[in-house]
Amino acid sequence: MVNTDLHLIISGFGGKMGKCIRALLEGTPTHVYDAHHCVGDCLRPLVWVDFSSSDAFDQMLENVRRAQCPLVMGTTGLSKAQMRQLVQLSKGQVVVYDSNFSVGANILKKLAYQAGMALKDFSVTIFEAHHGTKKDQPSGTAKSLRQVLLSGQPRQIPILSLRGGGIRGEHAVIFSGMDEILSLKHEVLDRKVFAQGALYAIEWIIQKKPSHGLYNMQDVLEA
Amino acid sequence: MVNTDLHLIISGFGGKMGKCIRALLEGTPTHVYDAHHCVGDCLRPLVWVDFSSSDAFDQMLENVRRAQCPLVMGTTGLSKAQMRQLVQLSKGQVVVYDSNFSVGANILKKLAYQAGMALKDFSVTIFEAHHGTKKDQPSGTAKSLRQVLLSGQPRQIPILSLRGGGIRGEHAVIFSGMDEILSLKHEVLDRKVFAQGALYAIEWIIQKKPSHGLYNMQDVLEA
Amino acid sequence: MVNTDLHLIISGFGGKMGKCIRALLEGTPTHVYDAHHCVGDCLRPLVWVDFSSSDAFDQMLENVRRAQCPLVMGTTGLSKAQMRQLVQLSKGQVVVYDSNFSVGANILKKLAYQAGMALKDFSVTIFEAHHGTKKDQPSGTAKSLRQVLLSGQPRQIPILSLRGGGIRGEHAVIFSGMDEILSLKHEVLDRKVFAQGALYAIEWIIQKKPSHGLYNMQDVLEA
Amino acid sequence: MVNTDLHLIISGFGGKMGKCIRALLEGTPTHVYDAHHCVGDCLRPLVWVDFSSSDAFDQMLENVRRAQCPLVMGTTGLSKAQMRQLVQLSKGQVVVYDSNFSVGANILKKLAYQAGMALKDFSVTIFEAHHGTKKDQPSGTAKSLRQVLLSGQPRQIPILSLRGGGIRGEHAVIFSGMDEILSLKHEVLDRKVFAQGALYAIEWIIQKKPSHGLYNMQDVLEA
Repeated sequence: MVNTDLHLIISGFGGKMGKCIRALLEGTPTHVYDAHHCVGDCLRPLVWVDFSSSDAFDQMLENVRRAQCPLVMGTTGLSKAQMRQLVQLSKGQVVVYDSNFSVGANILKKLAYQAGMALKDFSVTIFEAHHGTKKDQPSGTAKSLRQVLLSGQPRQIPILSLRGGGIRGEHAVIFSGMDEILSLKHEVLDRKVFAQGALYAIEWIIQKKPSHGLYNMQDVLEA
Repeated sequence: MVNTDLHLIISGFGGKMGKCIRALLEGTPTHVYDAHHCVGDCLRPLVWVDFSSSDAFDQMLENVRRAQCPLVMGTTGLSKAQMRQLVQLSKGQVVVYDSNFSVGANILKKLAYQAGMALKDFSVTIFEAHHGTKKDQPSGTAKSLRQVLLSGQPRQIPILSLRGGGIRGEHAVIFSGMDEILSLKHEVLDRKVFAQGALYAIEWIIQKKPSHGLYNMQDVLEA
Repeated sequence: MVNTDLHLIISGFGGKMGKCIRALLEGTPTHVYDAHHCVGDCLRPLVWVDFSSSDAFDQMLENVRRAQCPLVMGTTGLSKAQMRQLVQLSKGQVVVYDSNFSVGANILKKLAYQAGMALKDFSVTIFEAHHGTKKDQPSGTAKSLRQVLLSGQPRQIPILSLRGGGIRGEHAVIFSGMDEILSLKHEVLDRKVFAQGALYAIEWIIQKKPSHGLYNMQDVLEA
Repeated sequence: MVNTDLHLIISGFGGKMGKCIRALLEGTPTHVYDAHHCVGDCLRPLVWVDFSSSDAFDQMLENVRRAQCPLVMGTTGLSKAQMRQLVQLSKGQVVVYDSNFSVGANILKKLAYQAGMALKDFSVTIFEAHHGTKKDQPSGTAKSLRQVLLSGQPRQIPILSLRGGGIRGEHAVIFSGMDEILSLKHEVLDRKVFAQGALYAIEWIIQKKPSHGLYNMQDVLEA
């Protein structure tokens, strides 16, 4: 992190992602606060970071609005109403929201879109694999991949979900033609890849200083 | 084929498998007859070969019973009643029946059973991929793989099916543990691998000469 | 093929690719001639097609120059001197030359370039697998993939080559990061995918009618 | 660990494996000592554990001989002379030595042997992938896989090694036939799988109580 005075407030401070972000920042001059313990007076956070749960959405949103600071958010499973509120918030504040903060998954998305446009008569299947305790199925990233592919070419795109053991996270898009197959695959080796991506987003927000708007990791990575 | 006087009657003579078996036998001394054109008088077939359809089952069974010859059969999608009739037939005649005649798929089955016994606390998933025009889903081989795995250790085993393009046929068994994954995969490059397996079964029947009984490719390959 | 009067002369008429191209054209109004049997008088070919061998290069080049027609060429293993002669020819005639005419492999090349530019600090490895009787190692496509990747970002890119059985042809590019892996893979199910690509190139040459220049499948596919 | 009085001495106490074994034992009644700090007086260790380096072999061996206790050892890269000394030691003490303590890799070895015996006319290739900082190439496990395969059927078995990023460790055996491919793959998600395997070996030694002999993980797992 370039900014020595950086103050982060984290919703989901004790969760997997919260822990991982803090681990990456250990030994840096960045200050990290638990959103739970600073209801109003942690003061002048530069960035609010939310990797909590959709249940805590209302409270978080209210706090961010009051703090008038940028938001980097990766909480999935939002309802449509919550999604609308987030869009509303982004009209006054800058928000980076994505279901997957890893660099590789975002490149996968971009390449899959292009392959989909070039292989219009191929069958497309999405495959995703995660650890046995993951609750949602299919994954948010798989759904977002499907959306991206459908934006280029309408067709049926089944999602196959495997759940088992400790699989970190894998997404593949398989383009099956009559005589050839093209497949694009992203595998996570360590969850800190998501935390690292969140730090990229934080850095982007601070340096680029957009005053408002809803962005995602594609925007961050294109910079 | 070792036997120079070999006469085969094929049900499903004009189908994919029928054609493929005939192509492999071209230039050999083996005689091949279409079951449709020899209702009774093609005379002394050494082996009846059935790769037709479950709709034609009754007629085929009746013919084989009359011919009193061994049967090598790969027709899938049999009803329970048909399966019982086949078992009945095998009490007087020898039958080799399997949903997959490839050597590799049968080894996969054997190895998957052993891995399943050794990795009892792993999640197990079966993945299978076939061309977009395949009708049944999951494949017969996938179901038979699951049965084999369950015979060793009861557990939930989901089957993920991909259909697309011209995929020849792929089956994989994935054992997911907390810290490691073992996966066993069989891919078909050319459908003639099934025809070749059927020829192995024919050879086995002729040389081993069991007078009756229901066998499968495991029995053939163990010889 | 749209053009009813299309005449093709094929060098490598009896080879794998020659046979495959002819099979795809069976029943169409396109006329196909064996280069061996028409030394000068097969007359007014619209397109010369070369899938022969680098040994036959000189004769082929001479014939194409005299015929003054477009050339679609997929023969690999050319020497540098031969490559220069081809460039020279393309100053007066139009040439489409590529080491791999499949649509999928060309998309792989394009996507791999982009991924390479986005993942500059990842290790890159190329993996290719082909049947056990393939002579050159690594494959022409693997070498061309490496060249494309290096044009964007200089680094070491090892190529791993597997040779065995009847593998139709597989190319993969693996981008390994500390915490994630992105891999792009193309598999051939049937060699007719190359013949189909050659037909696309022929169609492109006829319709676009460039009078000269050296093109490849990327140019054809972008049209 | 079942045994409440268990005392372990670890050579390579501060290395990756040493740390990982200690982490797994945290909160258990097992006592763990650093071999460096107990030259003679750590007293009555039940088991000596060595995951150090071949450079430290002589000292370690001397200490174990004096301690007269069982040895569980995973240090690779031993010279032939060192290997002979280890065999010699095992005539008086019990030794479990393996290049890979994970359960899955050992099952891979067993299944690969069987597949190799059943598919004698297939080409066999070993593929292994590890992080970019791994020093030896090919991996010890790959070499041991090849040895096992060759013990059943002599043939050429190339090993393809990929090195890059943070790959935890992957080994695959690919059997390529003319019309089908069988592949067996083991992937490590977390290195603690090796530490867990070492604990299985320790438990096996304590419960089975062989007085001497050289064993490996196959022996441990068959129990």
